[in-house]
Amino acid sequence: MALAYDGAIQRLIDAFGNLPGIGPKGAQRIAFYLLSAPDDEARELAEAIEEVKDKVRFCDICGNVCETSPCPICADPRRDHSVICVVEEPKDVMSIERTREYRGLYHVLGGAINPMANVGPADLKIPGLLKRLETKEVAEVIMALDPNIEGEATTSYLTQLLRPVGVKITRLASGLPVGSDLEYADEVTLGRALAGRREA
Amino acid sequence: MALAYDGAIQRLIDAFGNLPGIGPKGAQRIAFYLLSAPDDEARELAEAIEEVKDKVRFCDICGNVCETSPCPICADPRRDHSVICVVEEPKDVMSIERTREYRGLYHVLGGAINPMANVGPADLKIPGLLKRLETKEVAEVIMALDPNIEGEATTSYLTQLLRPVGVKITRLASGLPVGSDLEYADEVTLGRALAGRREA
Repeated sequence: MALAYDGAIQRLIDAFGNLPGIGPKGAQRIAFYLLSAPDDEARELAEAIEEVKDKVRFCDICGNVCETSPCPICADPRRDHSVICVVEEPKDVMSIERTREYRGLYHVLGGAINPMANVGPADLKIPGLLKRLETKEVAEVIMALDPNIEGEATTSYLTQLLRPVGVKITRLASGLPVGSDLEYADEVTLGRALAGRREA
Repeated sequence: MALAYDGAIQRLIDAFGNLPGIGPKGAQRIAFYLLSAPDDEARELAEAIEEVKDKVRFCDICGNVCETSPCPICADPRRDHSVICVVEEPKDVMSIERTREYRGLYHVLGGAINPMANVGPADLKIPGLLKRLETKEVAEVIMALDPNIEGEATTSYLTQLLRPVGVKITRLASGLPVGSDLEYADEVTLGRALAGRREA
């Protein structure tokens, strides 16, 4: 009795099922979608995967993903080279760029300290950050890690580590998200919002 | 300001974002996952996509997906060739095979009648089904379409169409799902379960 699909389809379902956020049903749905999709669309996806593996690399300076090193942000003379914003992942760079509020540079750590997942300081791109601070060109380092346990631990660790360098160290404000309801804010967020209150 | 990723990554995010069930955030997550995944895993996915488009076709007899036509089910002499189970999609074949309760053949319509989506009888593989019934080898046709409006409409249409052929036409039982609670059953399902009650 055929309890799995014929070779190629099952291999495709399995390959999609290995991706994050895609379950067995979703993988099956995508496989059948690709099967009946125009040849062009399916091949475009396959080529996009190959292309990313062939072309994309990490910027030697900031650790962001890019096709040229240094990346367009590090290489841009119009950006403020005296400020470095430290983030966990390349996608965080994009989140901050989307605010259109920041004109400085970035440093992508490649994660956060997380003993449960066996990620320690040695697994992060911290030496590169220290090296960038040696040039004395940098006046401020903004810690923009995720506001969760791992992010907080990494921020504390880095703050201790960078203190002797004498650079100004700041961090993103904690508080109520814009558009949210006071009623639904958790106690910790509301507490932070109170502690960080400003004159109106 | 860079509001999109560098070429190749953005193309990959866009390609994944076009797939069913994957939103922009999910597409980004998958793209970064593939970026840091071992080369082998990413290339396996790309090759699985190409392979499916190259190799997989539809069985000339039942319309199921397969790499050889006729498909392994149609070609299997140990299966009961006197019963045809009519389903909407290839994935429905797999669902029924998983029950291990059915030993007959299938006919995959490729959808259900759905005027809202511009799918009429002419878009379904109905002529192939009629042709299979001509041989007089088939004694029973089981309608196993989805128990929703489109499936019911298609079942009614096909039942009318096949009636003159003189073949026995049956349909899947409607009733309470196994393991469910009477309390949470909707009225239509509970009504069907009552109407279809059997001696205990």
